[in-house]
Amino acid sequence: MSNDKILVFGHKNPDTDTICSALIYADLKSKLGGNVEAVRLGEINEETAFALNYFNAEKPRLVNTVSDEVAEVALVDHNEFQQSVDDIENVKIIEVVDHHRIANFQTKEPLHFRVEPVGCTTTILRKMYQENNVEITKQFAGLMVSAIISDSLLFKSPTCTEEDVQAAKSLAEIAEINLDEYGLEMLKAGTKLENRSAEEIISIDSKEFPMGDKLVEVAQVNTVDVAEVLARKDELAAAMNRTIEEKGLEVFVLAITDILEGDSTILTYGAGAAKVGEAFDVAITEDTALLKGVVSRKKQIIPALTKAIG
Amino acid sequence: MSNDKILVFGHKNPDTDTICSALIYADLKSKLGGNVEAVRLGEINEETAFALNYFNAEKPRLVNTVSDEVAEVALVDHNEFQQSVDDIENVKIIEVVDHHRIANFQTKEPLHFRVEPVGCTTTILRKMYQENNVEITKQFAGLMVSAIISDSLLFKSPTCTEEDVQAAKSLAEIAEINLDEYGLEMLKAGTKLENRSAEEIISIDSKEFPMGDKLVEVAQVNTVDVAEVLARKDELAAAMNRTIEEKGLEVFVLAITDILEGDSTILTYGAGAAKVGEAFDVAITEDTALLKGVVSRKKQIIPALTKAIG
Repeated sequence: MSNDKILVFGHKNPDTDTICSALIYADLKSKLGGNVEAVRLGEINEETAFALNYFNAEKPRLVNTVSDEVAEVALVDHNEFQQSVDDIENVKIIEVVDHHRIANFQTKEPLHFRVEPVGCTTTILRKMYQENNVEITKQFAGLMVSAIISDSLLFKSPTCTEEDVQAAKSLAEIAEINLDEYGLEMLKAGTKLENRSAEEIISIDSKEFPMGDKLVEVAQVNTVDVAEVLARKDELAAAMNRTIEEKGLEVFVLAITDILEGDSTILTYGAGAAKVGEAFDVAITEDTALLKGVVSRKKQIIPALTKAIG
Repeated sequence: MSNDKILVFGHKNPDTDTICSALIYADLKSKLGGNVEAVRLGEINEETAFALNYFNAEKPRLVNTVSDEVAEVALVDHNEFQQSVDDIENVKIIEVVDHHRIANFQTKEPLHFRVEPVGCTTTILRKMYQENNVEITKQFAGLMVSAIISDSLLFKSPTCTEEDVQAAKSLAEIAEINLDEYGLEMLKAGTKLENRSAEEIISIDSKEFPMGDKLVEVAQVNTVDVAEVLARKDELAAAMNRTIEEKGLEVFVLAITDILEGDSTILTYGAGAAKVGEAFDVAITEDTALLKGVVSRKKQIIPALTKAIG
């Protein structure tokens, strides 16, 4: 085991922020003299592939476990252990940079832990380059701005702060892109669902959340054609109910997010599905409901569900 | 309820770092335009009283609950809920500044959370004044350096980093004190135990730690005369065993720390007391053992106990 090497990674079911943040933080730490490698805990999605390809970046190496190769790790874009690598409790976490709620996280010793309530992890990482006087290259500026566009749905999400917008504008200049044109092209690349199985659709961007003594899973897909996804409802329902059975979920919510309108249509199954209606004060009709103006799992869906279920 | 006011506080059984950090962070946030008040969750000890008196600072207001007067709070010098105010789950935590391990902490939404593995919370707060271009007055420099001296036992503790030492030196200049003279005088003020009951001695600086499914309590007192404390062993044992009974503790450890030698003598009771010997690889004789070079609960005692018991 190489004891001085550090692996950096984001959450399972990686999205663009998680993949780019791992690459970016590994770059920063390497430039500050560390022996650091970015890795990933799952397949990259088509939106992320588009961004990596556009900026000529290699995807991080795929790993299933980390304690067989390193003693220390740094986490980006997540902190909850159930979203992290399976053997997270067998390594020492020396740093966390994140922008999510804190839950199901603990360490034996103090560490560097930096969470800020901004829309994207790379917005924090950009500040860390500045604080350490490390120059941001065109390539890494491109990866940073791609992550901000992804997490903020091109600034439509209520998670998006003024700091994210200003960071994106400044990074877009370094990356030499037109924010709106590149942003919409990148987001659309992530909405190609027609060749995906129902199992894939519900797991592309899915996270589990303990609420009280219950476990809730919330998946999210972006699209420009909600009807196309809803046409596959029976197939999705079957896949979601299998997952509920396997994981003992209280409820499974799939949010189908219209990136042009800025709304989400949800599909929900499980014993607690009635409480999902309560959570958003809507009627669930045939397992589905439209949530006007809801695009953020973190800021809109999870707090409401936690209140109703947790 | 005043919805825009924020209360700032440290942990129960407040020590000098917790009290000074609350006062200091309230000062910084007020100067940045916030409506902020520092409060405390328990009586101040004699060391803290010495420091506050020396620098003409008022002790924060004592509170038992916070949700009856505010909606939002900021935590300093702790994050574990069992060390915080009893109704912590009824308020929104918007900020945490701390230097401890992270455990038993969770929020529904993202927040500002800054933990760094330095020896003292005020070392981080000092940086935050600099980052925000706020001048540190002589009085607040005095409170900051007092907290660093206290948490580091005048730089003897392994928790003390080079950053703490440099911060203390710079702050001592602003505070116009001689570090060694003031430091020893302040530490000695905290060692007057002869007028304290056994119940008081075991609760002056005591914290509970969940380890696995068990609860462990570790109290620490500083002294220049360990024998004087050990002479009251029967009385201390009775008080510790009552606490074990009341709280259902697996083990209760009292660390009697010699601030001149930099060692600790422990007293330990409870079903798990045998594991305390294993944790430090020492023989526990008549419920007591000398731990050479051990002065830090956080860095030396808790990690070893967690490994043996958790």
